[in-house]
Amino acid sequence: MSVFTIRGVIPPMITPFREDGSLDLSAHQANIRRWNETAMAGYLVLGSNSEAAFLNDQEKIDLVKATVEAAEEDRLILVGSGLESTRETVRLTNELAKVGAQAALVLTPSYYGDQMGEAAQVQYFMEVANHSDIPILIYNVTKYTHINISPRAICQLASHPNIVGMKDSSGNIPQLIQFQQVIDRQFNLLVGTASAWYPALDLGVQGAIMALANCAPEACVEIQTLFDQGDRAGAQALYRRMFPVNLAVTNTFGVAGLKYACLLLGYQAGHVRRPLLDLSEADKTAIRHILLEAGLLE
Amino acid sequence: MSVFTIRGVIPPMITPFREDGSLDLSAHQANIRRWNETAMAGYLVLGSNSEAAFLNDQEKIDLVKATVEAAEEDRLILVGSGLESTRETVRLTNELAKVGAQAALVLTPSYYGDQMGEAAQVQYFMEVANHSDIPILIYNVTKYTHINISPRAICQLASHPNIVGMKDSSGNIPQLIQFQQVIDRQFNLLVGTASAWYPALDLGVQGAIMALANCAPEACVEIQTLFDQGDRAGAQALYRRMFPVNLAVTNTFGVAGLKYACLLLGYQAGHVRRPLLDLSEADKTAIRHILLEAGLLE
Amino acid sequence: MSVFTIRGVIPPMITPFREDGSLDLSAHQANIRRWNETAMAGYLVLGSNSEAAFLNDQEKIDLVKATVEAAEEDRLILVGSGLESTRETVRLTNELAKVGAQAALVLTPSYYGDQMGEAAQVQYFMEVANHSDIPILIYNVTKYTHINISPRAICQLASHPNIVGMKDSSGNIPQLIQFQQVIDRQFNLLVGTASAWYPALDLGVQGAIMALANCAPEACVEIQTLFDQGDRAGAQALYRRMFPVNLAVTNTFGVAGLKYACLLLGYQAGHVRRPLLDLSEADKTAIRHILLEAGLLE
Amino acid sequence: MSVFTIRGVIPPMITPFREDGSLDLSAHQANIRRWNETAMAGYLVLGSNSEAAFLNDQEKIDLVKATVEAAEEDRLILVGSGLESTRETVRLTNELAKVGAQAALVLTPSYYGDQMGEAAQVQYFMEVANHSDIPILIYNVTKYTHINISPRAICQLASHPNIVGMKDSSGNIPQLIQFQQVIDRQFNLLVGTASAWYPALDLGVQGAIMALANCAPEACVEIQTLFDQGDRAGAQALYRRMFPVNLAVTNTFGVAGLKYACLLLGYQAGHVRRPLLDLSEADKTAIRHILLEAGLLE
Repeated sequence: MSVFTIRGVIPPMITPFREDGSLDLSAHQANIRRWNETAMAGYLVLGSNSEAAFLNDQEKIDLVKATVEAAEEDRLILVGSGLESTRETVRLTNELAKVGAQAALVLTPSYYGDQMGEAAQVQYFMEVANHSDIPILIYNVTKYTHINISPRAICQLASHPNIVGMKDSSGNIPQLIQFQQVIDRQFNLLVGTASAWYPALDLGVQGAIMALANCAPEACVEIQTLFDQGDRAGAQALYRRMFPVNLAVTNTFGVAGLKYACLLLGYQAGHVRRPLLDLSEADKTAIRHILLEAGLLE
Repeated sequence: MSVFTIRGVIPPMITPFREDGSLDLSAHQANIRRWNETAMAGYLVLGSNSEAAFLNDQEKIDLVKATVEAAEEDRLILVGSGLESTRETVRLTNELAKVGAQAALVLTPSYYGDQMGEAAQVQYFMEVANHSDIPILIYNVTKYTHINISPRAICQLASHPNIVGMKDSSGNIPQLIQFQQVIDRQFNLLVGTASAWYPALDLGVQGAIMALANCAPEACVEIQTLFDQGDRAGAQALYRRMFPVNLAVTNTFGVAGLKYACLLLGYQAGHVRRPLLDLSEADKTAIRHILLEAGLLE
Repeated sequence: MSVFTIRGVIPPMITPFREDGSLDLSAHQANIRRWNETAMAGYLVLGSNSEAAFLNDQEKIDLVKATVEAAEEDRLILVGSGLESTRETVRLTNELAKVGAQAALVLTPSYYGDQMGEAAQVQYFMEVANHSDIPILIYNVTKYTHINISPRAICQLASHPNIVGMKDSSGNIPQLIQFQQVIDRQFNLLVGTASAWYPALDLGVQGAIMALANCAPEACVEIQTLFDQGDRAGAQALYRRMFPVNLAVTNTFGVAGLKYACLLLGYQAGHVRRPLLDLSEADKTAIRHILLEAGLLE
Repeated sequence: MSVFTIRGVIPPMITPFREDGSLDLSAHQANIRRWNETAMAGYLVLGSNSEAAFLNDQEKIDLVKATVEAAEEDRLILVGSGLESTRETVRLTNELAKVGAQAALVLTPSYYGDQMGEAAQVQYFMEVANHSDIPILIYNVTKYTHINISPRAICQLASHPNIVGMKDSSGNIPQLIQFQQVIDRQFNLLVGTASAWYPALDLGVQGAIMALANCAPEACVEIQTLFDQGDRAGAQALYRRMFPVNLAVTNTFGVAGLKYACLLLGYQAGHVRRPLLDLSEADKTAIRHILLEAGLLE
C-alpha cells in the first residue's frame, strides 16, 4: 500500500446555478481555471458548500466530469459521496471514481441519529472502505449532521488501509488533539474550517478543506506558506485578518454569503438553489464591507 | 377545490429488506395484504420508518407501484417525497404521483439547518405546493431534522389550496394546540406518534401516521373507535397499554425494534438496511417481553 | 404514614420588588389576600416564577413567614427549597419548615449537570427526604435546569414515604404517561405549566402549579371545575382561550411578562430583580392585547 | 487607573471536605502551602472546581480568609463571587473583598437563561462592575451555564475600567480569536481549561485558570515557561502529555476525578460534597493508570 498524502489547501467548491436553478457547468469550469492559477492542492466537488445535498446523481457525475476536465493535472480530485445508506454510498463513490474522483470524502450518516452510535459508525466506514474503489476520508461536520465521530471510533478506523484521513469541521481544537493521539503520521487529518487553520498548522496539521478557499485561495495558501517558512507571526496575522471574512461566509451568511463574496472577488458564483434564500441588500453591503476591511477588495 | 380529508390510522410502512440489503417487494405486498384486513385508512410509503433515507429513486418508485398494486382500493396512498432541494422534491413528488401516489408528505429540509428559518420554510412549501401534481402535507419531525416548523409558518402555509395538512411527530401536545389555533377545520392535522394518540383525539385530532400501526394496527384503530363511541376510559386504557410498546419500537430500539416487533406479530419484516444495526439477542428478548406484557403476544 | 394529597391549582407566586430591588412584603401579602378569595388550593413560595434564584436566605424566610401570615388557613403552603448541595437543601428546607412551610418542592440539582445521572439524582432525593422535617416533592423543570429526571428515577423515589409527589414542568404529555406508569395513586403528580393543564386533567392529573395562576387564578380553577362536572367541552374551550396568555407570561416574555399581566389584572406585581430586564413598551402593548383577546381585560 | 495584569497559571482550587461533608480548612491550607512552592501566579477560591455551588456564604468567607492566611504574599487571590442576582453578586463580592479577595471572577447568570440575552448580560456586568470594590473578570463557562457570552457583549464590557478580564472555559479556540479582536492588550483574556493551554499561548494568551493546575501545577507552569523560552516543541509535547490527564479530571470524571488525582499526587483532597458521587474502584484505577502514563506517578 503506497502512502496517500494530502498537504495544502483545497476548496469545497461552490456550485454555480443559473437563476432558474439549473447547473452551470461552464461557470464551474471557469472558476476552476482561475483556481488552477493558485497553489492550492486540489479540489473538493460535492461538499457541503457545493450544495451537494441539492444535487441529483446525474448532476453529481456531470460536476465531477467537468471538474476533471478543467483541473490542472497535478490537483487532487476529491468528491463528497456520503449518502445515508452503506450501499448507496458505495454505489455513488464507485460511480464517481469511474469518472475521475481520486478519493472520497464520506459524511457520517445522520438521519437516524440516535441509532448512529460508535458501533454503527465504525461498521459503516469499514464497510464503505472495503467496497470503495478509491481511498476514503471521513467527514465530521457536527454543524450539519448533529453527530460527532469520537476519537475512539477514529482509533478503530484509522488502521483500515483504505481509510486515509478525515476532515474535521468542528473547529474544536481540543478534539483535534484527541484525534491526533489515536492516528499515525500517514493518516491525513484535515481541518474543515478556516477558523482553525493557523492553530491547526501549529499543531502539525498539514491540510485544510475550507469554504474560505473559494473566495480567498491565495490568503489560505499564504498562511501555510508563511508558517512553513517559519514566519509564524506573519501567518498568524494573515489568519486573523481573514477570520472575519470566514465568519461571514460560513456562520453568518452561509452558502449564499460565500457565493456573494466569490462574485465580488471575480468568480462566477451564480445563484443558490432553493430553498436557500438569496441575500438581502443589507447582507450584501455587510459582506462587501467585510471584504474591504480584510483588504480583499479595494 | 374539493375537500381532502384524512381520518383514521395510517402506518408509515416498514420496508422489508433481504439479508443482502436488497428490497423485498413481495414481502412488502404480503404485509399490505394483511393490513388490508384492518380498518386502517391508508398507507404511507417512504416515511422515516420506511428507511426512505436509504432508498434510491428507482426503489422508491418500485415501492409505490407495489403498494398501489396490493392496497385495497379505498385506502389512501401517501408517499414521503421530501428531499433537500425544492426542485428535487417537486420532481420526485410528481414521479411518484404518476405511479399512483395520492398525496405527498414532505419533510422540512434540514441539512442547511441554520439557514432554514421561517421565510425559507414558507417559500419552500409554497413552491413545492405550487408545482406538485398532488396535494401535499407538511412533515414536522424534529427528532430527525433538528428543525421545528413554527405555528407562525403553518399559519401562512395552511391557506395554500394544495397544502392539505401536516403530520406533527414531535409529540409536543402544547404545540399541537398552537397549530390548531392557526388552521381551519379542513386542514388535516395528524399526529405522528402513538405516544400522543389519545391526548390528540381528545383535542379533536382525527388522524395519525404512526410507527406502532405497523405492528399493532388493530389497537391503534380501536383507540379511535372507542373514543368515537364515547368510551374515553376504554380508549385511554388501551392507549396506556400500548404506550410501552410504542416507546420500544420508536425511541428505545428504533426501526430495527419496530421490524422485530412486526416479525413477532406475523409480518414479513426482513432486515434493516446498513448502517442500521441488527438487534442484539438481549434487545430481542426485551421486545418480546414488552409485547407479552401488552397482550399483543401470548 | 397518613396520605398527603394535593388537588387543585397553586400559583408559584410572583415576588414583588420595589424599584430599588428590595423585597416588598406588604405587596406580597396584598396579593395573597386577593388570591385567598379564589378557590385555589394553596401557595408556592420561592418557585422559579418567584425569582427564588435571586433571593438570599433571610429574604426566603421572610417571604414564607409573610405568606403564612396572609394565607387562608385551609391553604397548603409549599416552598421551593432546592439548592445545589444535599446539605444546604436539607438545612434550608428545615429552616422554612420551622416558619410554616408544609411541604417542599425540591429542584433537581443541575450545576454539575454531566455528573447528575440517575444514581446521583436518586441518592440526592433519598437523602433530602430522609432528613427533611416536611414531605418533599420533586421539581422537574428542564427549561431551567437542562436536566431531566427519568421515569426510572421516579420509580425508585416514589416509594419513599417522605417523597409525596412531583411537579413536572416539561409540558411533555407522553412523559407524563410514563411517570404515571411508575407511581401509585397516592403520589401527587402535578403539572407545572398551564399549557398542559386540560390534557393532564383528561389523563387523571389532579393538581397544577403554574405561572398563569398568578394572573388568571379563576380561569385556572374553572378549567378543573368544568372538567370535574363533566363539561369537557367547556373546560377545553377555556383552556384554549387561556393558552395564548400562558404562552406570553411564560415563554415569550418570562417573569417580567407575568408580572406585567398581574399588574394589569389588579395585582401588586412590582419590578423584576436585576439582571432580568423590564419590558419594552412594545412588549407591554402586546401583553395588554393578549389579555384583551382572552377576555381577561376589557 | 493602574493596569491590572494576570500572567501565568492559577488553580481553581479544590475544596477539601471531610467524610461528613464538612469543610476542612486545614487540609485546604496544607494544599496551598504545597502550591506556594510552585511558580503559580495566584489562587482562585470558589470556582466551579471548588464546588462553590455547594457552599454557603459563611463557608465562602471562611475559605477566602484561610486562603489569604496561607498564600504567599505575591500571589493573586481571586474569588468566584457570581450569584444569580445583581444585588447578591455585589453583596458577596464586597464581603469577600473585605476579607482579602483582590479580584472577582463573576459567572454569567444563567437560571433564567432564555431571558439572558446580550442586553441583560451587558447590563448585569456593568452594574456589578460599578458597585464592586475590587476589579472583576467575566467567567464564561457554557458547560455549566448553557449560556455563552458573545464577542459583541465583551466588546461593550471590555472598556469598563473595573472589568479587567475574562476567563473563557469553552475551549473554543476560534471564539478566542473573536474575543481577542474586540479587546485591547490590557484586558486579561484567560483560558479556563488545560485542553486549550498551548494553542492559547501560541495565540498570545498569557494566563490560565484551569483544573489541571490543582494536581499538576508544575507541568502547567512549565508549558508556559518553555513557550516563553522559545521552545515551542517542548511546550507542545508537554501539553500533549498532560492532555489525557486533563480530560480525565474534567470531562470524564469531573470534580471527584480531580480530587482523586490530587490525592494520588500528594494533596489533601478530601471528599466531594453530595450530590456528587464518589468514584468507583474502576474509575480510580483508570485515573491512576492515566497519571502513570503521563509520567506524573511512578
